[in-house]
Amino acid sequence: MVRFALFGAGRIGRMHADNIAAHPQARLVAVYDVVRPAAETVAGKHGARVATTVEEILEDGEVDAVLIASSTDTHIDLITRAAKAEKAILCEKPIDLDRERVDACWAEIAPLEPFVQIGFNRRFDPSFARLRESLREGELGGLRQLLITSRDPELPSRAYMEVAGGLLRDMTIHDFDMARFLLPEEPVEVSCFAAALIDPVVAELGDHDTAMVLLRTESGIQVCINNYRRAVYGYDQRIEAVCERGAILADNMRPTTLERWTAAHTEARDPFLHFFIERYREAYVRELDAFIEALEEKREPPVTFEDGRRALILADAAYESLRSGRTVSVEFD
Amino acid sequence: MVRFALFGAGRIGRMHADNIAAHPQARLVAVYDVVRPAAETVAGKHGARVATTVEEILEDGEVDAVLIASSTDTHIDLITRAAKAEKAILCEKPIDLDRERVDACWAEIAPLEPFVQIGFNRRFDPSFARLRESLREGELGGLRQLLITSRDPELPSRAYMEVAGGLLRDMTIHDFDMARFLLPEEPVEVSCFAAALIDPVVAELGDHDTAMVLLRTESGIQVCINNYRRAVYGYDQRIEAVCERGAILADNMRPTTLERWTAAHTEARDPFLHFFIERYREAYVRELDAFIEALEEKREPPVTFEDGRRALILADAAYESLRSGRTVSVEFD
Amino acid sequence: MVRFALFGAGRIGRMHADNIAAHPQARLVAVYDVVRPAAETVAGKHGARVATTVEEILEDGEVDAVLIASSTDTHIDLITRAAKAEKAILCEKPIDLDRERVDACWAEIAPLEPFVQIGFNRRFDPSFARLRESLREGELGGLRQLLITSRDPELPSRAYMEVAGGLLRDMTIHDFDMARFLLPEEPVEVSCFAAALIDPVVAELGDHDTAMVLLRTESGIQVCINNYRRAVYGYDQRIEAVCERGAILADNMRPTTLERWTAAHTEARDPFLHFFIERYREAYVRELDAFIEALEEKREPPVTFEDGRRALILADAAYESLRSGRTVSVEFD
Amino acid sequence: MVRFALFGAGRIGRMHADNIAAHPQARLVAVYDVVRPAAETVAGKHGARVATTVEEILEDGEVDAVLIASSTDTHIDLITRAAKAEKAILCEKPIDLDRERVDACWAEIAPLEPFVQIGFNRRFDPSFARLRESLREGELGGLRQLLITSRDPELPSRAYMEVAGGLLRDMTIHDFDMARFLLPEEPVEVSCFAAALIDPVVAELGDHDTAMVLLRTESGIQVCINNYRRAVYGYDQRIEAVCERGAILADNMRPTTLERWTAAHTEARDPFLHFFIERYREAYVRELDAFIEALEEKREPPVTFEDGRRALILADAAYESLRSGRTVSVEFD
Repeated sequence: MVRFALFGAGRIGRMHADNIAAHPQARLVAVYDVVRPAAETVAGKHGARVATTVEEILEDGEVDAVLIASSTDTHIDLITRAAKAEKAILCEKPIDLDRERVDACWAEIAPLEPFVQIGFNRRFDPSFARLRESLREGELGGLRQLLITSRDPELPSRAYMEVAGGLLRDMTIHDFDMARFLLPEEPVEVSCFAAALIDPVVAELGDHDTAMVLLRTESGIQVCINNYRRAVYGYDQRIEAVCERGAILADNMRPTTLERWTAAHTEARDPFLHFFIERYREAYVRELDAFIEALEEKREPPVTFEDGRRALILADAAYESLRSGRTVSVEFD
Repeated sequence: MVRFALFGAGRIGRMHADNIAAHPQARLVAVYDVVRPAAETVAGKHGARVATTVEEILEDGEVDAVLIASSTDTHIDLITRAAKAEKAILCEKPIDLDRERVDACWAEIAPLEPFVQIGFNRRFDPSFARLRESLREGELGGLRQLLITSRDPELPSRAYMEVAGGLLRDMTIHDFDMARFLLPEEPVEVSCFAAALIDPVVAELGDHDTAMVLLRTESGIQVCINNYRRAVYGYDQRIEAVCERGAILADNMRPTTLERWTAAHTEARDPFLHFFIERYREAYVRELDAFIEALEEKREPPVTFEDGRRALILADAAYESLRSGRTVSVEFD
Repeated sequence: MVRFALFGAGRIGRMHADNIAAHPQARLVAVYDVVRPAAETVAGKHGARVATTVEEILEDGEVDAVLIASSTDTHIDLITRAAKAEKAILCEKPIDLDRERVDACWAEIAPLEPFVQIGFNRRFDPSFARLRESLREGELGGLRQLLITSRDPELPSRAYMEVAGGLLRDMTIHDFDMARFLLPEEPVEVSCFAAALIDPVVAELGDHDTAMVLLRTESGIQVCINNYRRAVYGYDQRIEAVCERGAILADNMRPTTLERWTAAHTEARDPFLHFFIERYREAYVRELDAFIEALEEKREPPVTFEDGRRALILADAAYESLRSGRTVSVEFD
Repeated sequence: MVRFALFGAGRIGRMHADNIAAHPQARLVAVYDVVRPAAETVAGKHGARVATTVEEILEDGEVDAVLIASSTDTHIDLITRAAKAEKAILCEKPIDLDRERVDACWAEIAPLEPFVQIGFNRRFDPSFARLRESLREGELGGLRQLLITSRDPELPSRAYMEVAGGLLRDMTIHDFDMARFLLPEEPVEVSCFAAALIDPVVAELGDHDTAMVLLRTESGIQVCINNYRRAVYGYDQRIEAVCERGAILADNMRPTTLERWTAAHTEARDPFLHFFIERYREAYVRELDAFIEALEEKREPPVTFEDGRRALILADAAYESLRSGRTVSVEFD
C-alpha cells in the first residue's frame, strides 16, 4: 500500500486523486493546495486530510509518495524538498521551463538517489504502449519514419498561456517524449516551423498555436511532429510508424462506436474524445499503476527525471531552430 | 471480333452500347428499339445502323450476338427467335416474370444448344468475384452464414413498378442469384417478410419496398437478404460471409476517398455511388468481357439460362412464403 | 448508499462484486455461493462477509438489495424470496427457461410491488443507448429495418449448454431484448432458421449454434437477428438501424486502436474485445448505476420483470417457428 | 478531334497511347521512340504509324499535339522544337533537372506563346481535385496545415536512379506541385531532412530514399511532405488538410473492397493499388481530357510550364536546405 499526498487540487490533481482512491494498492492521505477550498473538496471526497503547509506533508511519516500536480513554477521546489524528505515523487510535466534550473535541481538531488517519475502519461496509453512493444520487437523491421499528430481541441486561456512557457514547452513536450519513447536511438537534429494562426492573443504573447517539427536520429530515422490548437473535431492524437516491412498506425478514440449514413455522408462517426482527461483516462490509471509497481519492486521509475530533462532540451532546440532558421544539433550532456 | 446487335436503347442499353464500342474484340453493328429515335441516337454515336425490325437483325449474317436490353416482356420472344437464328445471346435479367413461360422457352430452344448468358452483372464485380474465389478456395474454411444487403437509393417510378413483377422478382432476384453464386450448395428453404413502408403507391400496386428473406441450404448454411428501396445515403451493396475461421466482408464504393472531420462528426465519407450504372461500371465491362471470352473459346457462358430460371424460382418461393406464412421448400426441377 | 448481497460468486458474480465495490453509492456486505470457497474469495477481496444460507441474507436488515448471479434454475426461487423479504433485486438474465414458471412467479410477487431489474446489460452500452435515443428522437425519421449481429467468440462448455436452455433462450434472448429496446412497437411475428454447424456435441444436445431470426412489427418494421457461436475474430456485437432518412450503425470494440499495413493487408486492426466481460465492461457499470439511481429515486427499474418475460416469450416463439416451419404470431398476454 | 504524336513508347508512353486511343476526341497518328520496336508495338496496337525521326513528326501537318513521354533529358529539346513547329505539347514531368536550362527554354519559346501542359497527373485525381475545390470554396474555413504522404511501393532500378536527378527532383517534385495546387499562396521557405535507409546503392549514388520536407507560406501555413521508397503495403498517396473548422483527408485506393476478419486481425483490407499506373488511372484519363478541352477552347492549359518550373525550384531549395542545414527562402523569379 502506497500512501499518497497530493499537491495541487485543480483539474488534473482531482483526476489523480480519483485514480489513487480507486487503486487497490494506493491511498490518498493528504491534500495541499494554495487555494484551500480546492484542497478541501478533494480531501473531503476521498477521506483525506487537508494540509495547511507543504512541510506538514513532507514531515508526515505516513506519507510514502507525493503526486505533484501544482503549477509548473512550483515543481522544482517541491521535487527538491520531497526528495530530501525521502518521499517517492510522481510529478506532472514539465519539470520546469528552464533547463539550467532543471540541471541544478538534479545536481542537488541526484546524490539522494530519489525515486522521481515524470508525468508523461501518454507512454501508458494501451495503444501507444503496444506500438512501442511492436517497434522494440521489430515486428515489422527497423523504423524509418515517425509521424506524430498531436492537436488540442481548443486554445488554452490567456492566463494559462502566459505562464505555460510557450507551445513547444507546454504541448509539444509530450510529443518530444513520445518520439524518444518510440525511437530506437536519440534524436540528434531538430528543425521547426511555428506560427500564431488561430487567435491574435497568441501572437501578442509571442506564442504559437500551429507548429511542425522535424527530428532526425544519427542513423537517419526521421520524425515529423505536427501540432495545432483548435482541432474542432476533438483531441487528435495519432502516430504513424513506417518500418521496413510495413507501417503501424495508432488511431483516435470516440465516445461511441456509432456511424451515421445519410444523404450528406456515410460512415460519419462521433468527434473524438474531447481532451486529455477523457482520451487518456486509461493511460493515467496505468501511469499510477506503473509508478506503484516500480516503487514497490524497487525498480527505476518508467519515466525518469532525465526523460523530463531531455524533452525540455528538445523543446529548447526547436525554439533555437525557429529563432535561427537553422537545423539545430541536440546536446543532451 | 464479336459483332453485336442491341435490342433496347434505354438507359441500360446505352451503357451496354458504350461498353461494346470500347471493347477491343467487339463491335456494335445494329440497334433496334420500338422508339426509333432512341435507337438512332445510340446507333449514331457508335457508327452502327438502325434496324427497323427484329427480323432485319436476326437475318443479318454480320450479326454474331444480340444483347437484349429491351423490356422484360420481350425477353422470351427475343431469346427464342435469336436462338433459332443461331445468334449468341446476352439477355438482361429477369428472363421473364413467369416460370411456366421460362420453362416452355427452354424446352423449345434447348435442342438448339444456344449460347445464352443472363445479365446477373454483380457476379462480375471485382470484389464479389474475389469473395467467391475465397469461398471456393476455402480461405477461411466452410461457409456458415451469408448476409446480403441490397438497397436501392430510390423507389422506381410507378410505371416501372407496374410491369416489373414485384420487388422480389425485380430487385431481390439479383440477391437470389448472388446467394447461389456464393453458396457451395443450393438453397432448399425460403422464408420471407416484406412490406410497403416507403410510399402509399407501393401498397396500391400490391408491391413491397422493404423485405427480409431467409434461405437455408441442405447442410444448414443460412442466408439473410435484406432489401430496401430508399437508401438516401446511396446504393447499398454489401455482403458478409461468416466462415469457420473468420469472416469476409465486401463493402460499398464511393466517388472520392475524402473524409471530413468537423465539430459534428469525424471520418464522414461521401454517400455511396448512386446506383447500378456507377456502382457496377466495372462489373458490366467484365460481364461483356466474360461473354465474349466464353463465346470465342466455345465454353459455357458464365451465367446460364438455368441460373436465370433458378433465381426466378427462388423469388416465386419467397412470394409463396409471404402468402402462406410458411417456410417454403424450393423445387428447382 | 445501497448495501448489496451477492448470490453467485462465479465469473459474472465476481465482476458485479467489483463494480459494486467501485461504486460510490454502493457497498458489498455479504456473499453467498453454494461453492463456499468461491464466496470466500469474493467476500475477502471486498471486505464483505460470507453468508452460509440464503435466509441469513434475506433476514439481514443491513442488506438493501440482492444481486442474483447464480445459476438460472435458482433465479425464480431467489427472486420470489427476496421480493417477500422486501429486498430490491437485480437478477441476471434469463429469469427462467420456462414461461409458466415465470408467470407463476409474477403472479405471486406482483402484489408486493417488488423492485426487480433484469440484467439485460446491453441496454446500458453507451453506443446502443445513444442509438436508442436517436431512434426515439427520430433523428433520421422512422425505423424501417433493424439488423442485430450477435456472435459469441467461442462455444460454451457442454456442461453449460446442458442447462442453458438452448441457443435461443440463452444467447438470442439478449437480442430479442435489444430488438424490443430499439423498436417503437412490439414484434408480432417471428420466423427462425437454426442449425448445429460448429461441433457435433451441439447436435447431440439438440441445441443450435448458428441462427437467423426474423421479427416483424404490426406496422411492418423488420428485424433480422443473426447468431453464431464461434466468431474467431472476437465477440461480434453490431446493430444496423435503417431509417427513413439514413442509417445508424453501432460497431464493435477493440483493445487498441492500432492498424497494421503490410505486404499482406492494410488497416488490419485488432480482433474485437474477446467476450462480454470486456466488451460490456462499461455497460455493466452503467447497469448498476441505473439500478441504484432508480432505486433511490423510487422510479421503475430501467429493465423490468416484464421485459425479461417478453424476451423469453420471443425465444419460445422462435422455437415454435423452428419446429413448425411457420411464421409464428407472438402473444405477450 | 486532336491528332497526337507520341514521343516515348515506354511504360508511361504506352499508357498515354491507350488513353488517347480511347478518348472520343483524340487520335494517335504517330509514334517515335529511339528503340524502334517499342514504337512499332504501340503504333501497331492503335493503327498509328512509326516515325523514324523527330522531324518527321514535327513537320507533319496532320499532327496537332505531341505527348512527350521520353526520357527527361530529351524534354527541353522536344518542347523547344515542338513549340517552334506550333504543336500543342503535353510533357511528362519534370521539364528538366536543371533550372537554368528550364529558364533558357522558356526564354526561347515564350514569344511563340506555345500551348504547353506539364504532366502533373495528380491534380486530376478526382479526390485531390475535389479536395482543392473544397479548400478554394472555404468549405471548412482557411487552411492551416497540409500533410502530404507520398510513398512509392518499391525502389526504382539503379539505372533509373542514375539519371532521375535525385529523390527530390524525381519523386518529391509531384508533392511540391500538389502543395502549390492546394495552398492559397506560394511557399516562401523550405526545410528538408533526407537519408538513404533502404538500400546501400542509394547512398552510393548520393541519392536518398526517405525524406521529410517542411514548407511555409508567407501567412504561416505549414506543409509537411513525407516520402519513402519501399512502402511494401502499396503506393501510399494521402493528403490531410487542417482547416479552421475541421480537416479534410484524402485516402488511398485498393483493388477490392474486401475486409478479412480472422483470429489475427479485423478489418484487414487489400494492400493499396500497387503504383501510379493503377492508382492514377482515372487521373491520367482526366489529364488528357483537360488538355484537349483547354486546347479546343483556346484556354491556358491547366498545368503550365511555369508550374513545372516552380516545382523544380522547390526541389532545388530543398536540396539547398539539405546541404546547408538551413531553412531556405524560395525565390521563384
